[in-house]
Amino acid sequence: MDTLFRNVTAVLPDAAVLKYAYVGVDAGKITYIGTELPAEPPGGVIEGRGKVLAPGLVNTHTHLPMTLLRGFADDMDLQTWLFQHIFPAEDKLTAELVYTGSLLALMECIASGTVSVSDMYFFESDVARAVAESGIKANLCRPFQGEENHEVRTREALELIGQYHGYDNGRIRIDASVHAEYTSSPAIWEAAATLARENGLRLHTHLSETVREHDECVTKYGLTPAAVFDRHGLFSVPVTAAHCVHITDDDIAILAERGATAVHNPVSNLKLNSGVARVQAMRKGGVNVALGTDGAASNNSLDMFEEMKTAAILAAGDDPLTAAGALRLATVNGAKAQGRESGQIAVGFDADLILLDFDKPHLQPLHNVISSLVYSARGSDVCLTMVNGTILYRDGEFLTIDRERVLREAGKAACIF
Amino acid sequence: MDTLFRNVTAVLPDAAVLKYAYVGVDAGKITYIGTELPAEPPGGVIEGRGKVLAPGLVNTHTHLPMTLLRGFADDMDLQTWLFQHIFPAEDKLTAELVYTGSLLALMECIASGTVSVSDMYFFESDVARAVAESGIKANLCRPFQGEENHEVRTREALELIGQYHGYDNGRIRIDASVHAEYTSSPAIWEAAATLARENGLRLHTHLSETVREHDECVTKYGLTPAAVFDRHGLFSVPVTAAHCVHITDDDIAILAERGATAVHNPVSNLKLNSGVARVQAMRKGGVNVALGTDGAASNNSLDMFEEMKTAAILAAGDDPLTAAGALRLATVNGAKAQGRESGQIAVGFDADLILLDFDKPHLQPLHNVISSLVYSARGSDVCLTMVNGTILYRDGEFLTIDRERVLREAGKAACIF
Repeated sequence: MDTLFRNVTAVLPDAAVLKYAYVGVDAGKITYIGTELPAEPPGGVIEGRGKVLAPGLVNTHTHLPMTLLRGFADDMDLQTWLFQHIFPAEDKLTAELVYTGSLLALMECIASGTVSVSDMYFFESDVARAVAESGIKANLCRPFQGEENHEVRTREALELIGQYHGYDNGRIRIDASVHAEYTSSPAIWEAAATLARENGLRLHTHLSETVREHDECVTKYGLTPAAVFDRHGLFSVPVTAAHCVHITDDDIAILAERGATAVHNPVSNLKLNSGVARVQAMRKGGVNVALGTDGAASNNSLDMFEEMKTAAILAAGDDPLTAAGALRLATVNGAKAQGRESGQIAVGFDADLILLDFDKPHLQPLHNVISSLVYSARGSDVCLTMVNGTILYRDGEFLTIDRERVLREAGKAACIF
Repeated sequence: MDTLFRNVTAVLPDAAVLKYAYVGVDAGKITYIGTELPAEPPGGVIEGRGKVLAPGLVNTHTHLPMTLLRGFADDMDLQTWLFQHIFPAEDKLTAELVYTGSLLALMECIASGTVSVSDMYFFESDVARAVAESGIKANLCRPFQGEENHEVRTREALELIGQYHGYDNGRIRIDASVHAEYTSSPAIWEAAATLARENGLRLHTHLSETVREHDECVTKYGLTPAAVFDRHGLFSVPVTAAHCVHITDDDIAILAERGATAVHNPVSNLKLNSGVARVQAMRKGGVNVALGTDGAASNNSLDMFEEMKTAAILAAGDDPLTAAGALRLATVNGAKAQGRESGQIAVGFDADLILLDFDKPHLQPLHNVISSLVYSARGSDVCLTMVNGTILYRDGEFLTIDRERVLREAGKAACIF
């Protein structure tokens, strides 16, 4: 056994909690869970007294390099923010800046307990380069969009697939992608779906983020974004659909039937005044709902703890999401969206684990571990992040990323905007 | 000069930012702000490179001892939570437990940048004892409520006033209080208002937290809670009215005319499914709007950074609160609610200051200090908290509270529930 966590309070499937637990890790997998010392001697022991061991969090919709635009444009709606501020700024980005912004983002993710991300951006091979170095898991895509030649995009995607799809035993996977209905056209959707089908890929898109998107789509096609995507075969592969704020009951039926994942991005959706997704309606309708931060330019954090709490408190009421439900969105459902054997502390699952220090005033006393994890913990309470059994972060130290160099480069990069 | 902050990025009034600033503190007041080294030599120098110096935050509505009930009952509405879970649990509290719970809460407050709180609870002299030791500022009250004999409450209040009103040069003040319209009666309101008028006190109450409270009050009195309070003279003194979720335009006019403060508690109001207060309507109507966390049993944090961000993203739209607006709620408007010369980095104001370490991945790059302070910073980024020129917390160490003892006592205390 490579590593043994000792004396931890372990968060097991279905929000069960095992106190004074031993959790063993071998060859990147969870191999032991119990309250007895396992027979096999461990290579290393991690003491967990006063600490909670939880499944690592899965951020199923983000744009990592947008950390470089954190705080660049705030307090406006999506349309203004995107077309008047973000798109012009993004024109100035280079491959090297995207790489730097990605490393900066990955430090934030790893330090706040995220073990896997689904990223959508351009210069995606430079995002992949950062992900490869960092040790985090990722589903990555370069979206098809605009009036651009989709044959060029398909060629680029195939190149990215050749370079990174399946890298490091599947730690990195490449998804197909359409940016959004309102930024592309049917020919592009069909090309992306074809790419996905022919290469066995999942597909990542933005869906029904704003009421304007919904209304203009209905005017243009006589169908909602989900319905028009479905008509053009986009849902013939497993889709991760970000936002899903303005979807109809019929859209929910489409997503459920096609096995798609809706990614709830509550902070970004509120901040850009897009609205609040009907999380419980989607879950009841059979949709896999996961959780994402969106990019740091519209959040302005990549802290999944903040996202869990916001999701839970926004979905209070007669049929509340609850703390356990929010945790499920950020773990089990996220892993499902990415098609990974992760998101649970269970034997045979990937050792994607986080340890949180609960010996702090804001986490005491501890009546209910799951409640405290979702409603009281912050990303900064994470003291260890492990992916596939490898420790990436421990007690404030990044073990795979040169913190000082990246902070320096990111500071310089921001001056170009 | 007692203390000089050097090389800080200082957040000045109206969200102005002064880089490479010197800020001097003497005898508990801010005495110097500039980019030149002041002539007078300081007693101590605090280096601020890479750090942001901001006004300390004012939490204008909380119940400090309820930290002991953090995570005790979640995922239900206010009525169920309060009457079926919280009130029965509170029956078990003792003076000593209230003291312990208050110290636990104050550690959380101080470590996350809060310099002053408005607290409402029972055994309030034990809350005051904790506040006195901690060095934080506080407006404290023991609410009048129920069918209880208000003469007893008045006598108790006068005793509390004698003990603590004006303590340590006004660091502690005692407010009069009515718990809420739905938990009391006109005779009690009048007694509380009389107590306030006769002793020159402010008054703290809960107001229109839920739609049920509003509806039942209208049925009972033919008036909204604000209107019926006004009829009975409650607003004849400066009032801090917590929640104000379900208030009418006429209520807004009453609050504005009477110079009352509405305390926005966005996290607690969402978590208990009470709704979202119309912050911008109240501000436009001339009401002083401040910010509070409510108690840790309904939040479940006392982190004002979380509260600022939630307030700002909930009030996006055509007339957004904005980051600067949220900061104002948590500083200037909070100090105004408490009647204090605090909440601003300005010469002559109380030296209630917080220093934040911005040399962290989630706070870089720094395009906009105010945006990053509100949208990206967490309470855990605070590395120094100063009240009246005295440092209460620095680099994780509490200088006035015995952290280990309080955590131990709080853990024991939780076992009684």
